[in-house]
Formats: sequence, structure tokens, C-alpha cells
Amino acid sequence: MPEYRQDLITGRRVIIASERTGRPDRFSFNNKGGLLPRDLPGYQEDCPFCYGNEKETPEEVAAWREGSHNDPDWQVRVVPNRFPMVELKGGAERFLASPGMGFERMNGYGIHEVIVETPEHNRHPGEFSAGQMKIVLEAYQHRLQVLSDYENLKYAQLFRNHLRQAGASVEHPHSQLVGLPFVPGEIQQELEGAYRFYLKEGICPYCYILEEEKNREERVIYQDAYFLALMPFAARLPFETWILPRKHISSFTGVFSEELTKLAEVFTEMLSRFNRLLNHPPYNLYLHTAPFHVGSLPNFHWHLEFLPRLTTEAGFEIGTGVYVNVTLPEEAAKFIKEGEVSTI
Amino acid sequence: MPEYRQDLITGRRVIIASERTGRPDRFSFNNKGGLLPRDLPGYQEDCPFCYGNEKETPEEVAAWREGSHNDPDWQVRVVPNRFPMVELKGGAERFLASPGMGFERMNGYGIHEVIVETPEHNRHPGEFSAGQMKIVLEAYQHRLQVLSDYENLKYAQLFRNHLRQAGASVEHPHSQLVGLPFVPGEIQQELEGAYRFYLKEGICPYCYILEEEKNREERVIYQDAYFLALMPFAARLPFETWILPRKHISSFTGVFSEELTKLAEVFTEMLSRFNRLLNHPPYNLYLHTAPFHVGSLPNFHWHLEFLPRLTTEAGFEIGTGVYVNVTLPEEAAKFIKEGEVSTI
Repeated sequence: MPEYRQDLITGRRVIIASERTGRPDRFSFNNKGGLLPRDLPGYQEDCPFCYGNEKETPEEVAAWREGSHNDPDWQVRVVPNRFPMVELKGGAERFLASPGMGFERMNGYGIHEVIVETPEHNRHPGEFSAGQMKIVLEAYQHRLQVLSDYENLKYAQLFRNHLRQAGASVEHPHSQLVGLPFVPGEIQQELEGAYRFYLKEGICPYCYILEEEKNREERVIYQDAYFLALMPFAARLPFETWILPRKHISSFTGVFSEELTKLAEVFTEMLSRFNRLLNHPPYNLYLHTAPFHVGSLPNFHWHLEFLPRLTTEAGFEIGTGVYVNVTLPEEAAKFIKEGEVSTI
Repeated sequence: MPEYRQDLITGRRVIIASERTGRPDRFSFNNKGGLLPRDLPGYQEDCPFCYGNEKETPEEVAAWREGSHNDPDWQVRVVPNRFPMVELKGGAERFLASPGMGFERMNGYGIHEVIVETPEHNRHPGEFSAGQMKIVLEAYQHRLQVLSDYENLKYAQLFRNHLRQAGASVEHPHSQLVGLPFVPGEIQQELEGAYRFYLKEGICPYCYILEEEKNREERVIYQDAYFLALMPFAARLPFETWILPRKHISSFTGVFSEELTKLAEVFTEMLSRFNRLLNHPPYNLYLHTAPFHVGSLPNFHWHLEFLPRLTTEAGFEIGTGVYVNVTLPEEAAKFIKEGEVSTI
């Protein structure tokens, strides 16, 4: 029997119809002859993100290196996107909370950066050392901090697309960061829902979910003193996973170095497990964090959402906003949790 | 320079970044060796929807035939989905408008039907006669009417997925109808936004958009006395198109037969143009109509939304709810409008 579930925070409904397609082990990704990162060369001559090709990108805005600034021996590099979806031109016009009568076109004001995560063309983050991953997380944090200093930027979306089936157009391992002059709809909905919960129940809904899920166990795939990785109760897609900090902290810019070290471990371990158990699936990964200039929020935890793209959203999902998930989150969690521990 | 646009009704923001990929004529669909409907056989032995294989489906709930009920010479047939995402079992539990503290699983109560649009395995609706299309529209309307009589159903989503890239798993031309015990999130947002507009401006926002778009012309691809087909100002995806009735009418169940005749013409013409000019693209199509049991609404028009799936939504879109559209709707409309008139 299919069932409806509703996300506690956003109110988003999903249909869990696990009889439709079957068990988690049927989801091993069929790449249909496409190349996996490890099958690619370590260096590709025409890749602007490869070590040695640094002059092919716009001038870097930040880099992490062992040596001096002019030393090409970098570990992580941040550059402006050559084909930006937004640009720091023209100035931010006023962005109204609700639309008016008009058909106004507004300047595409913003910043679009690429975080090149490694000099190696073929190294997926699931194979990073925890040290390399920590530098990537430091780069995320640093750039978020820099963008948050722009008065006219209200939010920045950090995200990572892996493989063409998840919308990636560049092979070389990278993340992207887009600074925007408004708080985007999904974040707004999440914050508003979390605020309603907070006012009604008197506690942060993320603190509540963390406590409940820890006790229920069935959807938790990893936990330590700092983080919980879990498949959410109302998962939209098979194997949707969230990484949540146990500590109540609303902005990723406020995470301590020691916590980033731990996050690097969880994150690499999780990616590695998914690669092994689902045969290197395409995925989208993004950060939800507090908007800029709002201080610390009582109703929100920054967190990562990881969405393997193993099924295709179709007319029902787009028309209704209700996702049909063909895997029980509890079964998906069991499958991932009980996989042999990988050797990173 | 990229630009932001905002949908007048939902407040949904999009980024139009047409420099990123280029002009509409670059969007001709590359099917990568997959078969188009016309390359398939007219009859397939193992297809339960083909003429002659009627016993392979669950018992039909409605059919349109020229002869008697037992005559296999049907034109359109409606059957229950063999792998339903919802089922008429257990009874509808109470569906709250906002989520509570719990992690309740609710019965997947509902009805999931398939509308088989033609006995022929390989005939895409873009190649239907206007007469055949009208019967399909009558079937849509009839089944919506039947489902609206269930006290516990609050909405039914009608949709059509075409090709695997748009989530279709069955080749034979068909639409689907899913009756739900709640008003889904996208519909709720649209109705609420339309209601805010109506209260503030004193007119139905769809009436307003129709008048504005008719005068501006640049996004209109088809119009007659009854319907406007247009690319919306804040289109989410390249070639997103809406078909709107000019007459203020909130439910599709209230459309007159004469109007269905006209709609069949617009609809077939539009699908035919897209097939010809974009090389048979994958697409999702869905109906938005008034919820059941609410009577006539002052702030809403039923309408069809057509979304070709030529690009892939990725982490940015999923994380923010903001779509990045790489085609200007005005250029896409020009491209479709100026294509030679097809001979249906």
C-alpha cells in the first residue's frame, strides 16, 4: 500500500510507493557506457581546471596552496564562472517580496564562482583524503563569508552536480557558488515553515528532528558527536540524505575548524559508500544555510542535502510539487548502513 | 546580461541566462538513437494498450467506441493503472493543512487511471485528427467529473509524459489521472498567489495576463476566439508554453463541447509544431484546474502547461527553487510562431 508523508518543516508532501519499483538494491546506477571519474585521465589538455592550465580560467579569486601565491602547486582553487548565470553588473534593483502588476525584467545581479576541488581531473570527492576534503569545506566557508559581506547579496547557493544525468556539464571535480540579491523560494519556504514550527512548539524543528531520528534510529545512516546523516522521513527521491549538525547553528560561516574536520570525514565516507553501493550514481548536493545579514536564527540549522538522481521527475511531480519516491527511506537507510565499511 | 523575472501569480523567480547556451534553433532535440513514435510498429504484441490486447489491462472504467460496449473497436479507453501510485483502500485519513509534531504515515488513498489515447502504438497526439483529440479531451473531462464526485478526493492531477527523458516508462500514447485527498502544494501556491493578486488588484490575474499578453504579442504563439497559447513571461524551461482559455472559467469540467472542439485544434497544432521545429522533444504536459468541491473561483482559469525537457534541472534549481532558463521566452515564441504552418 502506498503512503503519503509530509515534511515537518516545509509541509511538502511525498508519495512513498515502494511497490512500484522495488527494493533498494535494484537502484544500482546503470551508467550506460558513460565514463566514471576513475576511468578518465588524471590530466586533460583542454580542461581549464586541470593542473597546469590555470591561465585558461578567469583570474582566480582564492586558492589554497602549500607554497607561495605564484606557486602552481594548488590544492583548491576558486575562479569566476566563465559562463555565469548572474553577474556583478548594473547594481541590485529592489526585489519585492511579492510580485506587482508589471512584467519587470530585473538585472541578473550576483556572483557566480567555481570551486575547483582538486587539481586531478579524475578524483571524485568520495576518494579524497579527509585533509583534501577539509580544504574544500574551508573554501566553501571562506567564499560564503566573502559573499556575505556584499550588502546587496541576500543569499548564496552552494551546490555540486555530479555526472551529466544530474545536470553537470564539466567533468573536472568542482562545486559552484551563486550569490543572489534575494532569498530564493525554497529557502524562504524552509525558513517560514521552521519559524511556524518554532512559534507553535517552542523549539527549533531541526533540534527536534535530530533528537527524534537519533531515538528512532531507522533512518540514521551515520552519527558521531557532531553530525547525523539521515534519510529524511519524507524523502523526495530514493536515497535522499541530509547531513545535519547536532549543534544548533544556523549559518555555515559559523562552523569551527574542528567541526569542519569532522564534517570532512562524514562527507567523504558518505560519498564513498554511495559510490560503492549504488555504482557511482549521478547526484546533486547543496547547502542550505541562513540568509546573509540576519544574524543567528533560533529556528534553523545549516545542513547539506544530497539527492542521487536515479529516477526522473515527470509531469505529476512538476504539476503538483508532490514527489513520488519508489523506495522506503527506512529500507534505503538500512541498505546504505549495512554495506561493508569502505576503506577510504 | 542575465535577468531575473518573477511569475506574477506564484512569485516564483527565474533567471533568464540566454547567453549561456544560445538561440532557440540550437535546441533541436538529439534523441541519441532512441526511437520516435513514428518509427515504432503500429501494433506491439506485448503492449497492453494496443488494440486487441484489451484483456491485458485491469477492467476498463470507460471507453469511447463507435459501436457497442463489447465491440473492440474503441477510440479512447480508460483503465486503472496496474502499478498505481495511490489506491482506493483504507479510507482517506484527515489531511491537515500544516504538519504536526509527528511522523505520521498516511494511507496512500486515491485513484490512478490511465487514459489510452489511441489504439495505435505509434501515433503521437501531434498526429491525431482533431476529432480523435476531441475524444481524448472528452475523456479527460469525463474522468475528472467522475473523480470529483468522491467526497474524499480534493484534486486530480491530469498529466502526460512523453519519452523516457521526460519520465515516461510506457511507449503507447497515454495520459494519466491521479485523484488525491488533498490539494497539492503547487496548486495551493498558485491559488493562494492568484487570490492575493485578486484581492489586491480587484481582477483575476489570468484575465489580466491574457489581456496584457494579447497586447504585447511577443510571447503569444497562437490565438483564436477561445484560446491563447503563450510562452509565460517567467518561463522556467526553454519553450515552456501555456494554453489558456480566454473565458474566465476555473474548472476544466465546466468547458463546453464547442470549446473542446477548438481546444483539440490548438492542442494538436501546437504539439505538431513542437515536433517539427524541435525534432520531437521529450515533454511533460499537465492540467491545472480548480480543486473539487469549491465551486467557481473568481481568481483562477484552468489551463494546460507544456514543458519540453531539453535541459536538466540541477543542484541550483533543486536547492533554490529558482530555474535557470537558457532561452528568452520572446525568442522561443518567435521561433515557434514563425515556423511554417504544418499540414495536419
